[in-house]
Amino acid sequence: MTDAASDTRIAYNLTLSCADQPGIVHAVSGALVQAGCNIVDSQQYGSPASGRFFMRVAVASDRPRTELEGRLAPVAESYGMEWSLDPEGARMRTLVMASKSGHCLNDLLFRQRSGTLPIEIPAIVSNHTELAGLAEFYGIPFHHIPVTPETKARAEQDLLDLVAEHDVELVVLARYMQVLSNDLCRKLEGKAINIHHSFLPSFKGARPYHQAHDRGVKLIGATAHYVTADLDEGPIIEQEVIRVDHSRSARQLVTMGEAVEARTLAQAVQWHAEHRVLLDGHRTVIFN
Amino acid sequence: MTDAASDTRIAYNLTLSCADQPGIVHAVSGALVQAGCNIVDSQQYGSPASGRFFMRVAVASDRPRTELEGRLAPVAESYGMEWSLDPEGARMRTLVMASKSGHCLNDLLFRQRSGTLPIEIPAIVSNHTELAGLAEFYGIPFHHIPVTPETKARAEQDLLDLVAEHDVELVVLARYMQVLSNDLCRKLEGKAINIHHSFLPSFKGARPYHQAHDRGVKLIGATAHYVTADLDEGPIIEQEVIRVDHSRSARQLVTMGEAVEARTLAQAVQWHAEHRVLLDGHRTVIFN
Amino acid sequence: MTDAASDTRIAYNLTLSCADQPGIVHAVSGALVQAGCNIVDSQQYGSPASGRFFMRVAVASDRPRTELEGRLAPVAESYGMEWSLDPEGARMRTLVMASKSGHCLNDLLFRQRSGTLPIEIPAIVSNHTELAGLAEFYGIPFHHIPVTPETKARAEQDLLDLVAEHDVELVVLARYMQVLSNDLCRKLEGKAINIHHSFLPSFKGARPYHQAHDRGVKLIGATAHYVTADLDEGPIIEQEVIRVDHSRSARQLVTMGEAVEARTLAQAVQWHAEHRVLLDGHRTVIFN
Amino acid sequence: MTDAASDTRIAYNLTLSCADQPGIVHAVSGALVQAGCNIVDSQQYGSPASGRFFMRVAVASDRPRTELEGRLAPVAESYGMEWSLDPEGARMRTLVMASKSGHCLNDLLFRQRSGTLPIEIPAIVSNHTELAGLAEFYGIPFHHIPVTPETKARAEQDLLDLVAEHDVELVVLARYMQVLSNDLCRKLEGKAINIHHSFLPSFKGARPYHQAHDRGVKLIGATAHYVTADLDEGPIIEQEVIRVDHSRSARQLVTMGEAVEARTLAQAVQWHAEHRVLLDGHRTVIFN
Repeated sequence: MTDAASDTRIAYNLTLSCADQPGIVHAVSGALVQAGCNIVDSQQYGSPASGRFFMRVAVASDRPRTELEGRLAPVAESYGMEWSLDPEGARMRTLVMASKSGHCLNDLLFRQRSGTLPIEIPAIVSNHTELAGLAEFYGIPFHHIPVTPETKARAEQDLLDLVAEHDVELVVLARYMQVLSNDLCRKLEGKAINIHHSFLPSFKGARPYHQAHDRGVKLIGATAHYVTADLDEGPIIEQEVIRVDHSRSARQLVTMGEAVEARTLAQAVQWHAEHRVLLDGHRTVIFN
Repeated sequence: MTDAASDTRIAYNLTLSCADQPGIVHAVSGALVQAGCNIVDSQQYGSPASGRFFMRVAVASDRPRTELEGRLAPVAESYGMEWSLDPEGARMRTLVMASKSGHCLNDLLFRQRSGTLPIEIPAIVSNHTELAGLAEFYGIPFHHIPVTPETKARAEQDLLDLVAEHDVELVVLARYMQVLSNDLCRKLEGKAINIHHSFLPSFKGARPYHQAHDRGVKLIGATAHYVTADLDEGPIIEQEVIRVDHSRSARQLVTMGEAVEARTLAQAVQWHAEHRVLLDGHRTVIFN
Repeated sequence: MTDAASDTRIAYNLTLSCADQPGIVHAVSGALVQAGCNIVDSQQYGSPASGRFFMRVAVASDRPRTELEGRLAPVAESYGMEWSLDPEGARMRTLVMASKSGHCLNDLLFRQRSGTLPIEIPAIVSNHTELAGLAEFYGIPFHHIPVTPETKARAEQDLLDLVAEHDVELVVLARYMQVLSNDLCRKLEGKAINIHHSFLPSFKGARPYHQAHDRGVKLIGATAHYVTADLDEGPIIEQEVIRVDHSRSARQLVTMGEAVEARTLAQAVQWHAEHRVLLDGHRTVIFN
Repeated sequence: MTDAASDTRIAYNLTLSCADQPGIVHAVSGALVQAGCNIVDSQQYGSPASGRFFMRVAVASDRPRTELEGRLAPVAESYGMEWSLDPEGARMRTLVMASKSGHCLNDLLFRQRSGTLPIEIPAIVSNHTELAGLAEFYGIPFHHIPVTPETKARAEQDLLDLVAEHDVELVVLARYMQVLSNDLCRKLEGKAINIHHSFLPSFKGARPYHQAHDRGVKLIGATAHYVTADLDEGPIIEQEVIRVDHSRSARQLVTMGEAVEARTLAQAVQWHAEHRVLLDGHRTVIFN
């Protein structure tokens, strides 16, 4: 029952995955009924390739959160579920990393302030200083952490310290032009999102717009994906393309692509922050 | 559990809607567990505007269909559900109506034969004869039912006779250029789909591409919708657009639009035939 | 000849329109040859509906601008041309008007600063004060000009004073929520661009997203058009759409639409500032 | 001057390319004026990368074609142009090759017959027999030319014989599942178009939809390109994509992709047949 008038109700998003088997939905919905929950919206998916079952349920309840957890825990236990129960609309603590280009950072900051992106940003990290003013305008602490071959290990530790200090749930690489170490990739696995400025797997690596221009493609794009140690190979969350023609220079493709990068990244961050993205091996299940 | 190897299992799509209230998913999933079903894929949605709850579940079971129905019937009864249980992949009996333009008909016939559109077509009806050869090529009986002001009532009765004779579940108006009577619209309510050659609600009525050309729009489109007595106002199932520019004549818009009409209609028919479209008043819920 | 190395050359965009007749391209290209110009890129179009001929030529020359003008003027005179010769890359002086919502303004400001939008903004005008901080961050004077029925005439005169004072070439209504008087519309004819938050001509007037939600459309959009006294009927410059589904509330459509509005407006402003938009009655010819 | 009423006028498309230098447009437009031509529509482009200049002009004239050619020939000579003068609307003689899948062939045949694709098809060649009935329905001779390692050379010679016999101007590989020999590729250079069932350069080679499914991309596409000896590397004419999600199997991607392949190929064939595609090295210039 969806009743916008019942103010005392709190909404939660329950997400879970486990090995596929009969009875999962019935067991989960049973626990939710016992906890006084109404299902507002739900999606389930069984992956034939991996044999995993995925579920997202938006519920409303007037009981305390501990009661929901108490009802769900035994079910989760018996099915060996990975699960998460998150208050609807809670802002995910997100650290944003950037270098010199501000188009993605600007977009995230504007959407976050205007309330259309459910994140809060306790820190911005950059290996350059160009974007300090933008951070300051939005009132967010700006951390300049330069990276050289000599200081890279130290720089990554500084980042991890910030992640710990601010209880960061998500790290967004908003055109951060440094490759993370394998070790850092592993530590951030499943909670770091990168924007690649091409339609992956086309044009991996450096200068993708120049590669695209040289190949004469008619569409260019951007790909938001989870960061993994395998560069440009992480699970894809979102992709978008725009049409280009022969008259555009590689430099113009860069400019046109910036707008696509910004909105592709923002979309991926939004879905992640709304707990709509679940990992199925190196693929993503997106309940949107 | 999704197990492509278990050949003895039969898959079903269960769709239902009812007044929203707590416990629906639990009750339905309980009946499914009792009937030995596994949920392969499911979506639920509670409509705040109408207070209705909608659900589609794809299940697999090795029990007889009667057992599923026997388990589901009491649940459906107690919640006052409209519901339907359909074997996965069953071809919906579809009558197609057209006039002189064959682009939509040709597309439906090709997709039907190649197996990408789960319909079978026992009859094609036209108020002209131009498309008889196309029907013949696909081996489908072609019924020429001309329509004049004097014969309209009779022509509509002939159509209804064909619907009854062939147990037709869906009527598709594939650029059929006659307005149906209010009475016929009501008789076919929820089981007749029309393609309108504009991006509704823009350019209702006649010659929409000429209207679009005159207005100088930069995108043209097509709209597939259920037929209602209120012309061009039926619930929208699918819409698509393509980009045009100043250099296109109204006549070129007509040609460019044909491709959009064909694929928009085919998509709507596919979703309907797969039991993915549910009616929420004058809006559609589409679980795709 | 396009030779990026010849630094002494200056590039110009020549745009013109006149009654269609034989010999126009030959006459214009003759004047350009005499003025030592090379054509880099050009498009021509003869409009069957209006009988007008439109032309845009990007040229490079090492002669003084006065020589080009001297060669072109007699040709323009003899054909009765409306014409304009503009240095490539010159920033168009643009006054931006907004109310409380900043998404379009923010996008224009960021693109302008990063150099992807060839405009300079000498003044921002708003009937509210919410966006003063954003203007300040970008270092642009913010003029708060409240509008009430009593002060409307005075407010419009203040705007015209700013336009005159800053030699403004383009006024952009970036979600400015006031209807301009007929008189002001006429004074700004062809040099004021508005963003309407629907896919015109669908959902004219107020609250278009709520209209769209109620109608159950599957695509929502935005339309950038020149301002005319006939509200929402001005010549369309650009339109874009995005896909939505049944689960989105009217309020979510508003949020999703903001991103489309911002990029549709930015695209229209860019084309206008690059002298790519010519008026053919109430339609636009866009050489992009 | 565009005057639809002057029936005695014949329209031509002039396309040309040459090394970029001053005066080209003036010289060409001069010859056109002398030949009594009016320019209806034109585009020019100078490629910075290659230093080539490209031009397409649609003209109308009431003089004999020989007079136009007589005026243009000396200009073309002096600038070293590759050029072509083609009557507007002339149908290009096109041989279509296919294997077992008929979606692309069906689309080309329907569009050709309905007059929206300016080609005529004197022959259909297939290494299988499944599509013979479709060819017969459209009244086009069907040539079954099986290909085995032993017969490949002979099969290619049979094809070339058909090309010669029917004065074929364009060969379309409409999901023809054989790799052409390098020698044949060279003989058909610039006049053979292939449809690749992925968004190149992603997923070159075999089973691209399975590759795409495994990689978890969110958009799949198709690429129409000129055939070259370098497999899947020919100049790209057109690309399109559609959105997919996690729930689609590789097999469903195949089905969804068919519609995209068909329309991408039809678009490329249309532009080629309308003389809108010019080659700039391994890139295409498209005046559309």
